[in-house]
Amino acid sequence: MSMKPLFRFAIPDARLDRSADFHYNAFMFSPIEWHHGVVRMLDQTRLPHEVVWVDCPDHQTVAKGIRELWVRGAPAIGIAAAMGYALGAQAIRASTHDEFIRQLKPIHDTLAGTRPTAVNLFWALNRMNTIVQLHKDRPVEEIKKRLVQEAQAIHDQDIQRNVAMGRHGAELIQDGDTILTHCNTGALATGGHGTALGVIFSAWESGKRIKVLVDETRPVLQGARLTMWELQQNKIPATLITDNMAGSFMKKGTIRLCLVGADRIAANGDTANKIGTYSVAVLAKAHRIPFYIAAPTSTIDFSIASGDAIPIEERNPEEVTNVFGKVRISPTNVEVANPAFDVTPAKYITGIITEEGVFKPGELKRKLGGSNRP
Amino acid sequence: MSMKPLFRFAIPDARLDRSADFHYNAFMFSPIEWHHGVVRMLDQTRLPHEVVWVDCPDHQTVAKGIRELWVRGAPAIGIAAAMGYALGAQAIRASTHDEFIRQLKPIHDTLAGTRPTAVNLFWALNRMNTIVQLHKDRPVEEIKKRLVQEAQAIHDQDIQRNVAMGRHGAELIQDGDTILTHCNTGALATGGHGTALGVIFSAWESGKRIKVLVDETRPVLQGARLTMWELQQNKIPATLITDNMAGSFMKKGTIRLCLVGADRIAANGDTANKIGTYSVAVLAKAHRIPFYIAAPTSTIDFSIASGDAIPIEERNPEEVTNVFGKVRISPTNVEVANPAFDVTPAKYITGIITEEGVFKPGELKRKLGGSNRP
Repeated sequence: MSMKPLFRFAIPDARLDRSADFHYNAFMFSPIEWHHGVVRMLDQTRLPHEVVWVDCPDHQTVAKGIRELWVRGAPAIGIAAAMGYALGAQAIRASTHDEFIRQLKPIHDTLAGTRPTAVNLFWALNRMNTIVQLHKDRPVEEIKKRLVQEAQAIHDQDIQRNVAMGRHGAELIQDGDTILTHCNTGALATGGHGTALGVIFSAWESGKRIKVLVDETRPVLQGARLTMWELQQNKIPATLITDNMAGSFMKKGTIRLCLVGADRIAANGDTANKIGTYSVAVLAKAHRIPFYIAAPTSTIDFSIASGDAIPIEERNPEEVTNVFGKVRISPTNVEVANPAFDVTPAKYITGIITEEGVFKPGELKRKLGGSNRP
Repeated sequence: MSMKPLFRFAIPDARLDRSADFHYNAFMFSPIEWHHGVVRMLDQTRLPHEVVWVDCPDHQTVAKGIRELWVRGAPAIGIAAAMGYALGAQAIRASTHDEFIRQLKPIHDTLAGTRPTAVNLFWALNRMNTIVQLHKDRPVEEIKKRLVQEAQAIHDQDIQRNVAMGRHGAELIQDGDTILTHCNTGALATGGHGTALGVIFSAWESGKRIKVLVDETRPVLQGARLTMWELQQNKIPATLITDNMAGSFMKKGTIRLCLVGADRIAANGDTANKIGTYSVAVLAKAHRIPFYIAAPTSTIDFSIASGDAIPIEERNPEEVTNVFGKVRISPTNVEVANPAFDVTPAKYITGIITEEGVFKPGELKRKLGGSNRP
């Protein structure tokens, strides 16, 4: 594990040149990268107090990083899983294709078993499996190389999609808007630039004077720790609030629109996202405030008809009872519920911002159905 | 300041006998008492980890205790203010009535300046002023004695009212109910027994098998720290959730009714209560879940027509950014909003449970108007 006291940009310049879409700014970095044969990730549990990069030497460490939230956010989880798969593949010593594929299976399964809700994880692993299938008549060493390339392609494409998403979404934002956001959906949650927060970055860069109201997002405080940090780095005006203040600020007329990310979107537009998103959506509707989701099409799961079928991860109760793993806030031996996500029905969602454009929830299947297949 | 490692019951037995209404149980204690010429209060900021009693030797220390949340909860704030007033009066050295009354003024003002939202504070101080006025032709030493008696009467009556409120409210609770509550409204928030949590205690004691879902109540975590502690002490099944989970559990059908307290109720029934209450009320309405307020009539401010006129206290940003005053959860130098209360319009309130019975918000003025005058 390498400790580095200073923040480093993690997008190699070489990658910056590959996409015409790529609009570089001082804040566009990646929380994860393939780095000379290891997977380097920013340990986001230490933010905003410490900037610590972890070099994962094997796929088990990558899986641990996903489970323990060193890397989080649906798109970033997908990238991490792909890189973990590629990393695991490099370590396989196999003389035959069958042996290689047999040894890939537990690597896939370890990574697939880390977190159940974000569909990008499974989408990315499917892309990796497909590479193996497509090239099964090629030498094992070539497949290994192609797996690294595919993981990097998933990363690159995520950035390109986020920048495209930012361009589409920024059109919905007006000069002077105050935007409520929940959880963290910035560069930290993705391969770079971000989803919902990426839209905010794009709007800001285009010259719109906006303000952001940031839900702290209990229990893991991604809003307070990560979103406030990203907005502060980018000098975008932001105010931190506790989750339970959002309704009150809606009532006061402070908020012009709500903008959040997604962990899995069902075919009908029902959206699983960080716990608390559903409450924000219901409150927004009660106050006639537009409520938008921003997510790449890789987050849409057309195999699921509605949100009822999305598995919701129940996490460790200590996330609720111990802030930052340090300070206990409740008596000991209490019962705790800790669903990490909730599902917002499509009827509460004004629009879904993707790299392909902005769609009403009911339009997804007709306009995008199948476009996100690996 | 006296540190006592063990929890002590603070209601003298003598007081238990005074009210026929008083239904004693093992958990009925008071967080504040007049104790041999000092005001003794439980420092609730240390709960649930430490049980520390503080002896306040003067009214300034009582005022500090109110400001810094050693004692909190609208009814308990009223009792603390009355006791602080009586304590300040004892220390006055005055040869004339005029001099005595002149010296009472800054004591009143110091206590009145501690917290703006809970009307019980002003209601209790008015009762103390009235005692001085009623007995202005009596010797100063007699007035001092009557002020102590009045503070104790305010305390005693609060307990009696809470027990009556509990009896009325318990009729709304059915066997098997799961009840959502926000903040702390138990014995700790009052002279004893509690308001909304007192209703839950009364229902439990009457044999109804109930469960309580407890919002942690950021930023000061009164739900996680205090309500969970009180429910645990009383062996009532309780589950701790973060504030942003409430909507999701409503959607799942887990919650049969919501029950919260109040810091000030306007004549039309609009209710100021702990930040986050408004969101719970809007969510409850969206899910057709009954939403009740429990508060003594001393919390109703008939001088205010609607909730728009209720002053909302903005507290220190560090309550949001530093959990338990210890662990910082955000970057430094960020902007924070920290309104301690919000106002729930009457249209979201199913009923208001008082010691006089349960009323619809629109009935308050006709049925109770003026009944809470000192």
